[in-house]
Amino acid sequence: MPLEIQDSEVDIVIAALQPNLTTFFEAWRPFFSRFHIIVVKDPDMAEDLQIPTGFDLKVYTKSDINGVLGSSSINFSGHSCRYFGYLVSRKKYVISIDDNCLPAKDTAGLTVDAVAQHMANLKTPATPFFFNTLYDPYRKGADFVRGYPFSLREGVECMLSCGLWMHNADYDPMTHVVKRNQRNTTYVDAVMTVPLGAMLPVSGINVAFNRDVLGPAMFPGLRLRKEGKHRWDTLEDIWNGLCAKVVCDSLGYGVKTGLPYVMRSDAEAGKALESLKDWEGVKIMDDVLPFFQSLKLSRTAVTVDDCVKELAGIVREKLGPKNAIFTKAADAMVEWNNLWKAHGAQNA
Amino acid sequence: MPLEIQDSEVDIVIAALQPNLTTFFEAWRPFFSRFHIIVVKDPDMAEDLQIPTGFDLKVYTKSDINGVLGSSSINFSGHSCRYFGYLVSRKKYVISIDDNCLPAKDTAGLTVDAVAQHMANLKTPATPFFFNTLYDPYRKGADFVRGYPFSLREGVECMLSCGLWMHNADYDPMTHVVKRNQRNTTYVDAVMTVPLGAMLPVSGINVAFNRDVLGPAMFPGLRLRKEGKHRWDTLEDIWNGLCAKVVCDSLGYGVKTGLPYVMRSDAEAGKALESLKDWEGVKIMDDVLPFFQSLKLSRTAVTVDDCVKELAGIVREKLGPKNAIFTKAADAMVEWNNLWKAHGAQNA
Repeated sequence: MPLEIQDSEVDIVIAALQPNLTTFFEAWRPFFSRFHIIVVKDPDMAEDLQIPTGFDLKVYTKSDINGVLGSSSINFSGHSCRYFGYLVSRKKYVISIDDNCLPAKDTAGLTVDAVAQHMANLKTPATPFFFNTLYDPYRKGADFVRGYPFSLREGVECMLSCGLWMHNADYDPMTHVVKRNQRNTTYVDAVMTVPLGAMLPVSGINVAFNRDVLGPAMFPGLRLRKEGKHRWDTLEDIWNGLCAKVVCDSLGYGVKTGLPYVMRSDAEAGKALESLKDWEGVKIMDDVLPFFQSLKLSRTAVTVDDCVKELAGIVREKLGPKNAIFTKAADAMVEWNNLWKAHGAQNA
Repeated sequence: MPLEIQDSEVDIVIAALQPNLTTFFEAWRPFFSRFHIIVVKDPDMAEDLQIPTGFDLKVYTKSDINGVLGSSSINFSGHSCRYFGYLVSRKKYVISIDDNCLPAKDTAGLTVDAVAQHMANLKTPATPFFFNTLYDPYRKGADFVRGYPFSLREGVECMLSCGLWMHNADYDPMTHVVKRNQRNTTYVDAVMTVPLGAMLPVSGINVAFNRDVLGPAMFPGLRLRKEGKHRWDTLEDIWNGLCAKVVCDSLGYGVKTGLPYVMRSDAEAGKALESLKDWEGVKIMDDVLPFFQSLKLSRTAVTVDDCVKELAGIVREKLGPKNAIFTKAADAMVEWNNLWKAHGAQNA
């Protein structure tokens, strides 16, 4: 990829949900070693972390989180600990990949540089106003298909890049139980902008974003009562993605999905059955999606910060009466906004 | 593909813009031979057609077109002649592929059965209300990603399937001139539903649709003054696709894009320079897209026929004053509606 990436503009943020990160870091070494890495240790995990040497890396633990947050009601345990890394980063861009994911191989058998691909997604324009049938028009060998309005060919800035995963899928507990042995083997060689107004389930497995701009909208808001340590019983990232998409749509920014893939190994997915009975995620999305689809933020909200504040208010008013977890989500969003102003906003 | 396709439910419609179709039909024989084929000869072309034997095939010529249409103002010359085939078909589904396209090969080197893929697209549900990050959830090995609302997992009926092309791109004349040697070599192994409200440039190169339902919306409406025999100087299919997408969105139907690919060889694309000076397509799309994006058809329009009638009226009122070609497009849409009732509606 001919695109130039400065070491000083990217932080890699890793949420450590397992103590032994040796395999993870050795596999990613060729792609991560030139960047600063923020490791946030799940505050519920007691064991010491095992991380190989040779990285520019800082580990944040429960005491760091408590030191910054004080009496915050935001829960940073489990996968949500990565958001603390977003807060303490001082870089323009953040890339975050789950600790059970390794580099994938493309269709030619070459190992994918997920960092370079995420940065290409963020540094080339997005095209949310008209769908290009041959996908990302800025990719080498591609262009705008006949009929694409010329006035839209400059595109807009891309703020969020959602990568995908091979092998172990990202399913809810029900689908995990029903499709226990299903694996994703299809490598779809495409990046595309998710059109204006279209909502998508952003998975936290493999994401990157422009922290300078979008940071105030990258929070752990919605938390299911019994949310644990597994992607399959969380909705924190899904909720966050919907909020970020609505904010990007409102401010004229783009969100891309597709490449890069990572290779995901979720050894514990078989345990999804255990959380099935109490999983609140089923009905919640049927309330959440119509809410986001009909949402219009006001034109006076001209920054991400403004938008999040307004969004929190609408969540409290419209969704709060349906379920207490939405009121808690609104609280967390307001609190994140304050945290960001106090701790997250400064750049290096 | 395990999907069952009845010979009796599909017509293949081919617009013959060149006399010698030998290579075309021999290449497609394995996939076309079990179906009825409608060949519509460009009414401007004088030469006799050369078509190999062994197909269940009917050729329609200028005299057939004149016989059915009488004093119609719709211009069926050039690529627009394929729409006459849509009108005289009596099948539930129509598949139409340009006569300069041959079967493509997939990433494994296997020849793609474009008929089977289009039918799979049309016969499995579409998901316009939420974007599935792992693409078509009904595909083998795929499913709905975590966070996809359960109430939306049944999907809706897919009415239009837009296939893609390898090798020679589908560019406007300007891009053809600038990127004379660029070829599409990326095979993106995915089918996706274009989200509700998102517009796309539907190319007529490689399409399929549910004729029973969508037929009244599959017309040659917009015609540039100097429209010729080349995709690069037409907008007929782009306009048609925008109309069809708006109608599908309004009635709760789906539109898919992606697979199947065909291999496209546009030997004459180098001549795009000649039509550059007079090409009206540049400015027109900058009027057309905002029009379609802000369009809302009324809830009382409950059939495709109703929607087209209403759409023609709005085109005449809002776009007509900007350019006479829009008034002509509205005329053609009304006329198509009448033609469809008189000649197109009956099923076999």
